[in-house]
Amino acid sequence: MPLAVAAAELLVPQLARAAAGDPLPSWNDSSSRTAVLDFVARVTKEGGADFVEPDQRVAVFDDDGTLWSEQPAYFQLLFAMVRVKALYPDHPNWETQPTFAAAISGDLKSLSETGVKGMMTLVTEGHAGLTTEAFAQTVVDWITTAKHPRFNRLFTEMVFQPMLELLAYLRQNGFKTYILASGGVEFVRPWSGKVFGIPPEQVIGSSVKTRFEIKDGKPQLKRLPAIELVEEGPGKPVGIYKFVGRRPIFAVGNSDGDLEMLQWVTGGKGPRFGMLVHHTDEKREWAYDRQSAAGKLDKALDAAKDAKWTLVDMKWDWQRIYPFEG
Amino acid sequence: MPLAVAAAELLVPQLARAAAGDPLPSWNDSSSRTAVLDFVARVTKEGGADFVEPDQRVAVFDDDGTLWSEQPAYFQLLFAMVRVKALYPDHPNWETQPTFAAAISGDLKSLSETGVKGMMTLVTEGHAGLTTEAFAQTVVDWITTAKHPRFNRLFTEMVFQPMLELLAYLRQNGFKTYILASGGVEFVRPWSGKVFGIPPEQVIGSSVKTRFEIKDGKPQLKRLPAIELVEEGPGKPVGIYKFVGRRPIFAVGNSDGDLEMLQWVTGGKGPRFGMLVHHTDEKREWAYDRQSAAGKLDKALDAAKDAKWTLVDMKWDWQRIYPFEG
Repeated sequence: MPLAVAAAELLVPQLARAAAGDPLPSWNDSSSRTAVLDFVARVTKEGGADFVEPDQRVAVFDDDGTLWSEQPAYFQLLFAMVRVKALYPDHPNWETQPTFAAAISGDLKSLSETGVKGMMTLVTEGHAGLTTEAFAQTVVDWITTAKHPRFNRLFTEMVFQPMLELLAYLRQNGFKTYILASGGVEFVRPWSGKVFGIPPEQVIGSSVKTRFEIKDGKPQLKRLPAIELVEEGPGKPVGIYKFVGRRPIFAVGNSDGDLEMLQWVTGGKGPRFGMLVHHTDEKREWAYDRQSAAGKLDKALDAAKDAKWTLVDMKWDWQRIYPFEG
Repeated sequence: MPLAVAAAELLVPQLARAAAGDPLPSWNDSSSRTAVLDFVARVTKEGGADFVEPDQRVAVFDDDGTLWSEQPAYFQLLFAMVRVKALYPDHPNWETQPTFAAAISGDLKSLSETGVKGMMTLVTEGHAGLTTEAFAQTVVDWITTAKHPRFNRLFTEMVFQPMLELLAYLRQNGFKTYILASGGVEFVRPWSGKVFGIPPEQVIGSSVKTRFEIKDGKPQLKRLPAIELVEEGPGKPVGIYKFVGRRPIFAVGNSDGDLEMLQWVTGGKGPRFGMLVHHTDEKREWAYDRQSAAGKLDKALDAAKDAKWTLVDMKWDWQRIYPFEG
C-alpha cells in the first residue's frame, strides 16, 4: 500500500528523514545535532587535521538517564525490590536491615538515597551462591515481562530513540561504543546486544565478585555477596581505563556522577566530544536537574558551558524520545 | 627478482603454503592442526549442528608461554628489573626489601618464585604517581629497544608464529580474540595491537589501581601503589568473566595456572575448544614442564587427556616457532 506508507511518512517525519539517509532522524535540526555531525565528519575525514584512526574511536555512554529513563527510580532498583520481595521469605533477618526493610516496604525515596552501592547490595546479598548463568536468567525473566509503572511498557522500550540512532551512527563511522553501567554490569549485559547493539564485553562498570568451583562435575562461577564497585564521579574514568585501557574520545552522560568522566575524556589530546543530556521534558519524559535524588545535574551543568560540552535539551532537541512514540 | 622469490619459497615451505591459502602455514600437518581446522569449520557452518553465532565466538589466550616465550623469566620481570635498577637511587630503602633486593642484584631465581604478584609489586611501587600515559611510554621505550639475552632479538620478536596465525585465522572466522595478561595489562596493552592484532581493551587481567585527578588544569589518571590482581588458576575464569561477561568457547594456555580457565571454558554448553602448549623444543625454544618455576605444567598436563584438550607439542607440531626463523 504505497499510498498508506506515504501518508504515514507525512505523519511521522523522522521516518521520511531516515528514508532520505538522515542518520539522526529523531533529532531536531538543532545545534546539538549539528555538533555531533560536525565532530564525526572531522574525525573521519582522512587527511584532515582532526582525523582519528578508526582503532582510536572509542565512545562511552553512561546508562541510567543517558540511554534510558531513570524515573521514578533507577530501573535496576525496581528489579532489586522485586527480587528482595521474592527472596524475603528465606531471609527473615532482612527486616532488621534498613536498606532491605525499605525495599520490602516499597520505600523508593529511602532506597534512592542509598545510591548505587545500596542498590547493588540488595541484588548481591540475595543472589549469593547462584551461578552467573542462573542470575542472568533472573534478569532476563524480569526485563522481558516487567512493565514501567507510568508508561506500562517494557523497560527495554524506555530507551531513548535519539540515543539508539547516535550509537548506530557512531558505529557506522568506525566507533566502538561502550556502556558504563556503574550500577552493575550483570543487570545490563544479558540484553544490551539486542537493545543497544552493544555486546556484553562492551558493558563495563561495577560487578559482583565471583568464585570458580566445580559442582557435580560442572565448572562454573558462583556469585559471592561482594561487589567490585566503580564509584560514581571520579570512579568512572578509573573504571573506563581499567576495562578499555585508554581514554575514549567521545563521552555522554546526564548527571554530576558523569562529571569526571566528561572531564577526563574531553581533557585528552586531539579532537574530543562531551555531551550532557538535560531532562527538560515533563510531558514526554521527566523534568529534573539540580534538586533530583536520582540523576542530580548541578555541578556538571555549570561545567558544561566552559568545557564546551554539548548540552542536549530533551524537550527541544529530540523530536521523539521513546521508540514506541508515533 | 621472481626467480629469487621462487627459490625462497622452496626453501621456506610455509611461505608456499601461505601463498596457497593455508591459514596455518607454520603448523605441521598434525592432529593439533586438524583439530583446530575441524573445530572452526564446525562452528562456522551455518545450519550445522555445531554452528555458533558470530557474536558468541570468543577466544581467550594466556600470554606468557602461550603467545610468546617466558624463559629465562617472564619478560615483564626482565622489564621490572631494569626499571627497579633505574629507580633504585630514589628508593634506597628497597635494599632492605627481599623482592626489590633480588631485582637489584639480578637474582632471577628468587624473583621467579615471587610469582605474578611479586613481579607486579616491583613495577607498581616504583611507578606510583606516574600518569597512565607516562607509564605506557616507559613500556614502549623498553619493548622497542631491549633485547632477549639468548636470541638478541626484540621481545616482540619472541612471539610464536603459529599463534599469530591461529589468532588471525580465528578472527577471519568471526572470533573476537582476547589476551589474558594476569601479570598486568599495562605491560601488554601499549603494543598488543601492533604485535598480536589485539586492541588494548581485549587485553584483560590484573591491573594497577589508579586515581582521577586534575593537575595544572589537566584531568588525568595517576597510578597508585596498589594492584587489582587476577590470580593464576581459579582467578582466571573469574577475571575473564568480569571483563568479557560470558564464557568464551575457545581457550589456549600452557601451564597449571591455566587449568581452571580451560576447565571453565570447555565445561560450557555447545562446542568448546581447549588447547595446551607444551614446551618440548630445547633447541629452537626451551623444553620444560612438570619441574619448571615459570610455566609449570603438571596437573594441567594430566588433565588434558581426559578433557580432550589439544596438546600442542612445539617440537613436532610447529614448523616454525618465531617469525624471524627461516
